[in-house]
Amino acid sequence: MRNSELVIDRLPDPEPGPGEILVRTLACGICSADIDTVRDAQAWVDQVEDWGNARALDPALDLVLGHEFCAEIVDYGPGTARRLRTGTRVVSMPAIMRPGMIAPIGLSNQVTGGYGELMVLSEPLAVEVPGGLGSELAAMTEPMASGVHAVAKARLDERDAPLVVGCGPAGLAVIAALQQAGAEPIVAADFSPLRRELAEKLGAHVVVDAALHAPLEVWKQTAGTRPAVIFECTGVHGMFQKLISAAPREARIVAVGICPEDDTYRPITAIAKELNVQFVLGYTPAEFSETLRRIAEGVYDVTPLITGRVGMSGVSSAFVELEKPDLHAKIMLDPSRS
Amino acid sequence: MRNSELVIDRLPDPEPGPGEILVRTLACGICSADIDTVRDAQAWVDQVEDWGNARALDPALDLVLGHEFCAEIVDYGPGTARRLRTGTRVVSMPAIMRPGMIAPIGLSNQVTGGYGELMVLSEPLAVEVPGGLGSELAAMTEPMASGVHAVAKARLDERDAPLVVGCGPAGLAVIAALQQAGAEPIVAADFSPLRRELAEKLGAHVVVDAALHAPLEVWKQTAGTRPAVIFECTGVHGMFQKLISAAPREARIVAVGICPEDDTYRPITAIAKELNVQFVLGYTPAEFSETLRRIAEGVYDVTPLITGRVGMSGVSSAFVELEKPDLHAKIMLDPSRS
Repeated sequence: MRNSELVIDRLPDPEPGPGEILVRTLACGICSADIDTVRDAQAWVDQVEDWGNARALDPALDLVLGHEFCAEIVDYGPGTARRLRTGTRVVSMPAIMRPGMIAPIGLSNQVTGGYGELMVLSEPLAVEVPGGLGSELAAMTEPMASGVHAVAKARLDERDAPLVVGCGPAGLAVIAALQQAGAEPIVAADFSPLRRELAEKLGAHVVVDAALHAPLEVWKQTAGTRPAVIFECTGVHGMFQKLISAAPREARIVAVGICPEDDTYRPITAIAKELNVQFVLGYTPAEFSETLRRIAEGVYDVTPLITGRVGMSGVSSAFVELEKPDLHAKIMLDPSRS
Repeated sequence: MRNSELVIDRLPDPEPGPGEILVRTLACGICSADIDTVRDAQAWVDQVEDWGNARALDPALDLVLGHEFCAEIVDYGPGTARRLRTGTRVVSMPAIMRPGMIAPIGLSNQVTGGYGELMVLSEPLAVEVPGGLGSELAAMTEPMASGVHAVAKARLDERDAPLVVGCGPAGLAVIAALQQAGAEPIVAADFSPLRRELAEKLGAHVVVDAALHAPLEVWKQTAGTRPAVIFECTGVHGMFQKLISAAPREARIVAVGICPEDDTYRPITAIAKELNVQFVLGYTPAEFSETLRRIAEGVYDVTPLITGRVGMSGVSSAFVELEKPDLHAKIMLDPSRS
C-alpha cells in the first residue's frame, strides 16, 4: 500500500534481526482488515490510538499487508536457535517481538507482511506446519484462531445456547470453535447463501437467512429459555444496538466483529436487561497452535472456505471481489505468482 | 407529578386488591430517578420502551413517586395470609405483582408510590422491619440493595481490585457491598468532599478527588497489575467511553449508573483491550432481604447517608437541593408531615 493504493514494486530484501528468521511466503489470506486499511488507513490509525501498537502504522509510508500466512524458512538472523531447518514450512502469530516493542506483521511499516515474497518472523513464534497439510490450509490458522479465542472468552457452560450473527470468516471461525466445544444448537445468521452453506459445513445446526427472519426470533424458537450467548461477527455500525434491543434478558454479547468507527447504543436497554458484553481480539500462542492442530488433523475442514486464489497482480481485483459475500469467504494470495 | 410538575393534592385512598396490603408510608427516600422523571418523563418513557414495564407510565396521567420506602400495615385486601399484623412496619421491593403484569411502585400510574400517605403492596414481597431499626434507615434498604446486587453480578475473585466511579447513593451502596465482600483495596472517586467522606465511612480505602486526579491513575498506583473491576456509578453521558479509554487491558466495567440517553463509544478501543461490560439493575428478593438484615444488624451504617429530611411541602426544594452533591446524599420524606 502506497498513498492508499495497492501497487506492486520491488523492495530491498528484509534482513532478519537477532532472534528472527527470514521466510518466503507460500500463501497469504486476504482479510477485511486489509481492505479497511487501504480504504481509509488514517481512520484506522485514528481509531486505534488507544491500541498500543497504533503508532507502528503511518499511512504516509509504504505498508506491505498480510497477516494470515504460511511461509518457508529461508535464512536465520543472529542469535537464533535454528531448531527448524531451512525449507521448513511455518505459520506464526502476526507479530514481531523486538526489544521494547511488538510490531504487528502486515499492519505496520516497521516489518513487511505476507503479501510480500519475503518477510521476517520472530523465531520463537514460528510453529512448524505438519507435512501433509497444504500451505493454503495452514494459512487459515490465523483467522480460525480468532474463533477459538472468542469461544474461550465466552466461557460457555452446558446450558448456553449460541447465536452467531454474520458468517464471514470471523463468524465461520466462531462456528467451528463452537462445534468443537460441543455447543448445541448453534444458530447462525447471514444474508449470503454461500456463507450460510459454509456455516452449516462448519457445524451450525440452524442457519437463518437474515433477509427473511430476525436472527433472535429464530434463536428463541430453537433455544427457548436457555441463556443466550450472541457472537457479533459483522462489525457493522449500529449492529451492537440492534442486538441489545433484540437480546433476551441477561444475554451475553461477544463482540468479535471490529466496527472501525464510533458507535451509539442505548444504555438503559442494556441495563434493563442486565446484558453482559465481552469484547475480544486475537488469540493466545496456545490457541494459535491448537488451531493449527485442528486444521492439520481434519477437526476443522477449512477447504471450502477458500473460495478464490490470486497471484500478485490479482490482489486489487480480489479486494473488489471480497465485497460480494455471495461469492467469497477467503481469497488466498500466492505472492510467488504474478 | 402532574403535567411534569410536583403538586400536593388529595387522591382517593388506594384499595388493596387480592393478595395486597394497604400501608402508610413512614419514610421515603428521594432518588435521582425521581428527579429525572419529573424533569423529562417523556424522554424516560421513550428510553425505556424496551423495558417490559415502560407502558405502565403515561406522563399525561398523575404519578405518585417514591420507591425507597418504609411503611406500616394498615389493612388487608382479599385473599391475604395476614401473617404480619396491622401496625407492623415493612419494606418491599418496589413492585406490585398482579395477574399478567408487574407494575413498578413509584414509577407507574397504576399504583401510587411512597411520596403518598397510603399505598398498596404485594403481601408476599413485604418484609418485616426488625423492632429496633428506625424507619428512615429501613427505607435505605432499596438503594443499598442495588449495591449488593451489582457486586454479586461482578463475581469478584480475590485478586480483583475495584474502582468505584461516582459516590452518590449508587456508588456508596456499591462501596458498602464491596467492603462486606472483603474486597481490598477499594478505590473510590468523586468530585464532592462530602461524598468522598461518606465513601470512606462505608469502607473505601483510597478516595480520589476526581477534580485533581484521574481515578484510573490512582487506581493503578494502588492496585498495580491486579485485575480491574470498575463500577460506573455516575450515569453521566460519555463516562462509558472515558472509562473504556482509561481502563487497563481486560478490565471489567460494571455499569450501575443509569445514563438516560443514547451514548457513544469507540468499539475498537474496547476490542483492543478485550474489556468486559456487565450492565446491572435492581436486585433479587434474597438480596433485598439480605440488605435489610445488614442495615438492621449494623453491618451497614447508613445513618450518615441521610443528609436531609422534609415533609410533603419540602419535596420541591429537596429536588433542587439534591443537585448539590456537596451537601447531600439522601433526603428522606415523611409524607405525614406537611
